[in-house]
Amino acid sequence: MFETQEEIPEIRERLHRVGITNLRTIARINWKGKFYTFIPTFEITIDVPEEKKGIHMSRLVESITETMSEAVEEEVKEAHTSLEELGLAIIRRLEKKHPHRRAEAWIKTQLIMERETPASKKVTLETYDVEVGVIKEPEKVEKVLKVIAIGNTACPHAMANNQGKTHIQRAIATLEIRTDYDEEIPLEDMIDVVEESFSSPTYTLLKTADENAVVQAMYSNPKFVEDVAREIIFKARQRFKGNIHVRVLSHESIHKHDVIAETWN
Amino acid sequence: MFETQEEIPEIRERLHRVGITNLRTIARINWKGKFYTFIPTFEITIDVPEEKKGIHMSRLVESITETMSEAVEEEVKEAHTSLEELGLAIIRRLEKKHPHRRAEAWIKTQLIMERETPASKKVTLETYDVEVGVIKEPEKVEKVLKVIAIGNTACPHAMANNQGKTHIQRAIATLEIRTDYDEEIPLEDMIDVVEESFSSPTYTLLKTADENAVVQAMYSNPKFVEDVAREIIFKARQRFKGNIHVRVLSHESIHKHDVIAETWN
Amino acid sequence: MFETQEEIPEIRERLHRVGITNLRTIARINWKGKFYTFIPTFEITIDVPEEKKGIHMSRLVESITETMSEAVEEEVKEAHTSLEELGLAIIRRLEKKHPHRRAEAWIKTQLIMERETPASKKVTLETYDVEVGVIKEPEKVEKVLKVIAIGNTACPHAMANNQGKTHIQRAIATLEIRTDYDEEIPLEDMIDVVEESFSSPTYTLLKTADENAVVQAMYSNPKFVEDVAREIIFKARQRFKGNIHVRVLSHESIHKHDVIAETWN
Amino acid sequence: MFETQEEIPEIRERLHRVGITNLRTIARINWKGKFYTFIPTFEITIDVPEEKKGIHMSRLVESITETMSEAVEEEVKEAHTSLEELGLAIIRRLEKKHPHRRAEAWIKTQLIMERETPASKKVTLETYDVEVGVIKEPEKVEKVLKVIAIGNTACPHAMANNQGKTHIQRAIATLEIRTDYDEEIPLEDMIDVVEESFSSPTYTLLKTADENAVVQAMYSNPKFVEDVAREIIFKARQRFKGNIHVRVLSHESIHKHDVIAETWN
Repeated sequence: MFETQEEIPEIRERLHRVGITNLRTIARINWKGKFYTFIPTFEITIDVPEEKKGIHMSRLVESITETMSEAVEEEVKEAHTSLEELGLAIIRRLEKKHPHRRAEAWIKTQLIMERETPASKKVTLETYDVEVGVIKEPEKVEKVLKVIAIGNTACPHAMANNQGKTHIQRAIATLEIRTDYDEEIPLEDMIDVVEESFSSPTYTLLKTADENAVVQAMYSNPKFVEDVAREIIFKARQRFKGNIHVRVLSHESIHKHDVIAETWN
Repeated sequence: MFETQEEIPEIRERLHRVGITNLRTIARINWKGKFYTFIPTFEITIDVPEEKKGIHMSRLVESITETMSEAVEEEVKEAHTSLEELGLAIIRRLEKKHPHRRAEAWIKTQLIMERETPASKKVTLETYDVEVGVIKEPEKVEKVLKVIAIGNTACPHAMANNQGKTHIQRAIATLEIRTDYDEEIPLEDMIDVVEESFSSPTYTLLKTADENAVVQAMYSNPKFVEDVAREIIFKARQRFKGNIHVRVLSHESIHKHDVIAETWN
Repeated sequence: MFETQEEIPEIRERLHRVGITNLRTIARINWKGKFYTFIPTFEITIDVPEEKKGIHMSRLVESITETMSEAVEEEVKEAHTSLEELGLAIIRRLEKKHPHRRAEAWIKTQLIMERETPASKKVTLETYDVEVGVIKEPEKVEKVLKVIAIGNTACPHAMANNQGKTHIQRAIATLEIRTDYDEEIPLEDMIDVVEESFSSPTYTLLKTADENAVVQAMYSNPKFVEDVAREIIFKARQRFKGNIHVRVLSHESIHKHDVIAETWN
Repeated sequence: MFETQEEIPEIRERLHRVGITNLRTIARINWKGKFYTFIPTFEITIDVPEEKKGIHMSRLVESITETMSEAVEEEVKEAHTSLEELGLAIIRRLEKKHPHRRAEAWIKTQLIMERETPASKKVTLETYDVEVGVIKEPEKVEKVLKVIAIGNTACPHAMANNQGKTHIQRAIATLEIRTDYDEEIPLEDMIDVVEESFSSPTYTLLKTADENAVVQAMYSNPKFVEDVAREIIFKARQRFKGNIHVRVLSHESIHKHDVIAETWN
């Protein structure tokens, strides 16, 4: 059997990120004492030194599937308590299987949070796209935490010029923090920061009384995408340590295009 | 050289649609005397009789590229006056290259229309996704014309319950007509029907006076997606002959999900 | 409080499908005695008679969330044994909440199946996109079952003309069956039919011995997309009752575009 | 009329990128003496100082549409000779309309190139996704040039272990260069570098003799994604000045997931 990957390549060039991506498999999290099963999308990469032709891709897959293997059965023996713990567990397993200097594990999934509707106080389940990356360099381990929440903006400029009438639209905000692996930042807290910064949060379930409450909230809280971005980065900086990146995109209801506000520290 | 396609397949089964898809190439249209160059996406299919293993895919590509070949050069000799004429020209060329009983040619592209902003009366260029399919059966040729336009809806229910305040959002409507090939239905007329049926059309350019006009229009014209769908199919039936399909989707500003209204005759 | 939805619309026109779409929430299935939690995407629609202006969207959301509400907690009381059972449960709950003549419930999610790698006989978990629709008409209930599997094709024409060398590519096949609600067709059986019809199935985990086995399988089993489509519809017709639709798309490795074969009975 | 944008925001925070995105409109390029019309997607942003609440979005739109306005008519007076020239022209126009310290103009479109098929020497038109960004900082103007090309990889490891048989798949490579605005780097040259680095380029039109030539090329040129990435960055560094980023993604024919190789200098 030939191990072509171990040969010396014609062009000697270190590569920073080589691996697998868009791999979906089952995972299981022990989240505050309750078990959640879900199907995230994974990207796992390592670097390749200049004297090696390639990497052994199947060892990356094994690192995922072995870490996850307990998750298929209901009688799970071990479940990780956060996505970053899961990511680091994959990298630790990979260290025994494949030499490398740096490694990354990225996990993309959805988070479900229980919310209360604003007037009727009913339970509503809300979903959020989240992504967590663990980046292991020779001297340190960092993580990237990313949450995406859907809210809305009511334009203050149109409101000022139309006796309280304005255009309103769905807006999508992303908050991303790159920080030390050990820094404790719950994704749920990041979602809270984003969601509180819109003209109003959005809800999956809204009875008429709730719908009225959301309408009132939007009109009493008009915001540009600029305002949403400023509020997110301001609050995030107060609560979380790390490099913060904010991007707000609004699907303008009066235009075919979108508007954006993006900033970072 | 082997012609594997001509062999008899193990499983004898007539296939209805075999061909190429997601092929992008340059095309050129003589549209009311002016030449427009654009890069549509093509899907061309023919049927395969039960005694043939496969089709000669390259002949489908040639039918497109030969029909289009004049389009690359500025000094075009011949340009088709509509997307359906282009589609039929591809099928006619294909008839000489590859035997078949039925054939389809689908062309997806964008259309640019010049509009006037509602107050300042400036010129604004608006883009619309359109798709045209030509379907040749042994006994007849039909076409499918499809336009997609972006407008908005202001919710009449929230407006009635909130003293004129309401939630507003971007909405996307699709009008599709299947009709005889010879039926003359300009895509621009279809776009007009769709665009007039929203609470307000959307514009790429809006100065403050225009923005105010759009805001006023939305509030004096509140509509459910249901209302938009009803108005499109009602007007479309009056103006166009054929099987009409309408789909309106609204990116609710108070929800994370979308709402739809769909109907047909 | 105004119920604008109950008003008579200006344009009287029955609408076939009005509702919510792209709604993601948590669901729980009791699948052969084991519980699986996942986050599907829902579309629920009902028809609107010509004398009603609109529907009460929140009742559709409630029908989903109430049916699902047990799913959040680990100590679930009741879990449905299939996606169609879940869909019908939503419709049945909706019948008590909102009058209608016809209703549809569509659930899109991923299915995980345990496979064995071809040579080393290791366990590999494979994911498949699936969609199930339940369509309730006044006189009957039907369902649509749809599975999507990823395999590959090795071109027999190039192989015949290049002494056994050929081009190979990833291919994606969709099998859709519309049938009576009571017809028992496991999605897993449909996936089996699709997956066996490629030049070879694909695997998430492949050690070198397995990779060799897949390579050998592809070369000893060259297929056009036409062959894959024929094999799927032939086998599906033998095993399943209903209207069958097959679509195979191959991401040609020698072209920028894709090729397709589509057929139905 | 109120100019809400000029107000002082509650939270004082400089924003780096505020503007419009996903705006499609018509553009016209004078490319080596010939005129090409196309419909790119634009993103234009400026920064917002901490004492201003927002930007005047319509001025960004005007900067695009005025720069482009000549493009609609066949009798064009002025056409730019490259996408970066177009981007800078938009920024220059914006300088007169809206104060700012930094501005970015991003243009995403497709490029058509005429190629020759490898054996029959027929003309084939190939399309490539390209994106150009112009980034104006107070002290300098830079540009980002990005091309995406579709080729294929034939796996050398499987080939070594299967007597010349191997798995082959479509691969997609991105080459991105950030450099001084004045650095002359034709997108076509960048595409050439990428396309020559695969096991073989792909072609829209391939007659059987050409198909055979591509098959032979792939087998005599087996490559990992790692090899493709190394070759692209090696050649790019020799020909182009700037910060180079390479990403190669391959749609593995034996897996459901993709593999990647990414590197930069």
